[in-house]
Amino acid sequence: MAGVDVAGEFETIRRLFAPLAHPEWGRGLRDDVAVIPSKPGHDLVLTKDAIVEGVHFLPADPLDTVARKLMRVNLSDLAAKGAEPFGYLLACHWSERCGWPERMTFVDGLRADQKAFGVALLGGDTVVTPGPASFSMTLMGWTPKGRTVARMGARVGDLVFVTGNIGDGWLGLQAAQEKLTLEADRIAALLEHYRTPTPRVEFIGPIRAYASASIDISDGLIADLEHMAAASGVGIEIDLEVTPRSAAGQAWYDGRVDEQAALESLVTGGDDYEVAFSASPRDEATLRREAGRRHLRLTRIGRVTTGEGVVARFAGQPVTIDRSGFAHG
Amino acid sequence: MAGVDVAGEFETIRRLFAPLAHPEWGRGLRDDVAVIPSKPGHDLVLTKDAIVEGVHFLPADPLDTVARKLMRVNLSDLAAKGAEPFGYLLACHWSERCGWPERMTFVDGLRADQKAFGVALLGGDTVVTPGPASFSMTLMGWTPKGRTVARMGARVGDLVFVTGNIGDGWLGLQAAQEKLTLEADRIAALLEHYRTPTPRVEFIGPIRAYASASIDISDGLIADLEHMAAASGVGIEIDLEVTPRSAAGQAWYDGRVDEQAALESLVTGGDDYEVAFSASPRDEATLRREAGRRHLRLTRIGRVTTGEGVVARFAGQPVTIDRSGFAHG
Repeated sequence: MAGVDVAGEFETIRRLFAPLAHPEWGRGLRDDVAVIPSKPGHDLVLTKDAIVEGVHFLPADPLDTVARKLMRVNLSDLAAKGAEPFGYLLACHWSERCGWPERMTFVDGLRADQKAFGVALLGGDTVVTPGPASFSMTLMGWTPKGRTVARMGARVGDLVFVTGNIGDGWLGLQAAQEKLTLEADRIAALLEHYRTPTPRVEFIGPIRAYASASIDISDGLIADLEHMAAASGVGIEIDLEVTPRSAAGQAWYDGRVDEQAALESLVTGGDDYEVAFSASPRDEATLRREAGRRHLRLTRIGRVTTGEGVVARFAGQPVTIDRSGFAHG
Repeated sequence: MAGVDVAGEFETIRRLFAPLAHPEWGRGLRDDVAVIPSKPGHDLVLTKDAIVEGVHFLPADPLDTVARKLMRVNLSDLAAKGAEPFGYLLACHWSERCGWPERMTFVDGLRADQKAFGVALLGGDTVVTPGPASFSMTLMGWTPKGRTVARMGARVGDLVFVTGNIGDGWLGLQAAQEKLTLEADRIAALLEHYRTPTPRVEFIGPIRAYASASIDISDGLIADLEHMAAASGVGIEIDLEVTPRSAAGQAWYDGRVDEQAALESLVTGGDDYEVAFSASPRDEATLRREAGRRHLRLTRIGRVTTGEGVVARFAGQPVTIDRSGFAHG
């Protein structure tokens, strides 16, 4: 917005960001706007997430992984809705530690994930802040008209599934804060998940085709299922023991004395960026086949019931999960 | 992104932002995404600007005007492209000073400008930062297919026009920093412009119909005309004396000894959020009529020439304008 380029913002855009721009719709990042032609028969799906140094990422986190995490967190939102991502706008609020080498590192991360996920930069803004760095991304995708999968739509009798593993987001944060005692390769795997979670973009097709309701797991499995239950006007029952754990998660779990407390930590920790969704029992076999083809873990963790809220069972009995501090959405 | 609502983020969304949501496309801000149906025959135009406390606004600025400025800065980008705004996504990075009353004040500003400009909230994110507050907005509008006005397109022989007045952005900042000595009502007018500039949304129709190239003035008249000249592969000549001044701007100008230096300050200061555009001489009469109908000041400040860059004339002679610190786009 300002004409004085003391902080090198014009130069940052021209040299670092312009090479990432969508060849047509981004206008070389030289025209203040992106212009996207309408796609007949499709809806445009948009999401926007922001991350702040010291809150959502650690000051020591490498900036390439910060960029990739920002993109992946947004990709996860679109994946859960069955939307095919194509592009994004980005606001960088650089801190004083973000000199030229750090900005290049950030852009390296973007470039890698643009290639991995088939998206391109469409525009944005780059500013400096005297405080900690923060970034926000507006990510866009397409769904066939009227086919965006919502939180709303779970029906009594549907089954509840989750992709991948639950708890690695929370364990990864503990690892990054050096609070975990585990073998080095377990720690490395958890750090990898914490820094670059895997959005389930590969499963967009089956989610779109078969999910009656869907949400990505950012607030924690229980909290996000509660959002889905509330939006759908139903209850959800899950079995804590069957929630899937990674090898590292299992290793951590095996070292716990209180199994129930350990499971509760995993299902309330958040930042998993897996997809939880409901689907009709008649589609279970197809969903398992689709997941198998992709070598993607898919676990049936529960069912949709009458009533409201989420009931979690441990050893067959409903348990009360202490989640003080959570706001119920 | 986090499940713990210590900072009241869920509550902020539910109580403050949800009432601003687009009734259909915003999904009540409850579904992580906005879903916008395609508009056949139209292109979607997007812009994204970010503002930071202590950089783009002052810590003492009331937060309702901060919200309105953020929206207006983005509206100005769309207006210059001939795009009709309809909605926006918003990321709020609240600082510690942003308690509930301050957030309500911010939302008051949004509500007022949503009504004034016919836009609605589509989604976004709200997070806290240990540093100064910052905000970013992704604003969207429609143009008829292929009709977005670009920086590129100015033709030799076109005339160059500007809406409103030039220099009030810079003078307003001086006023906000208490660096100006002027009558109280002049100061008030400049502060008003600084805090809530007027994006030229009302002139979208004529810009779309007649502008060969167009840009909004954020970096300063000279710098933005240089962007337009470079993108169009032409030169631009302007006469400094005819650049339009507000009553307050004129009062300030009348008190200067060095007229040329004063004019140079006004045309390099930036933050005017007026539109500069080129158009064929045959459309001048129509443009003046369209401006007159809207009681909008429209001034012909120069012409498009062969060559490159911007030549500014004072008393008929080309002058060199000292803009050290400017990056040439």
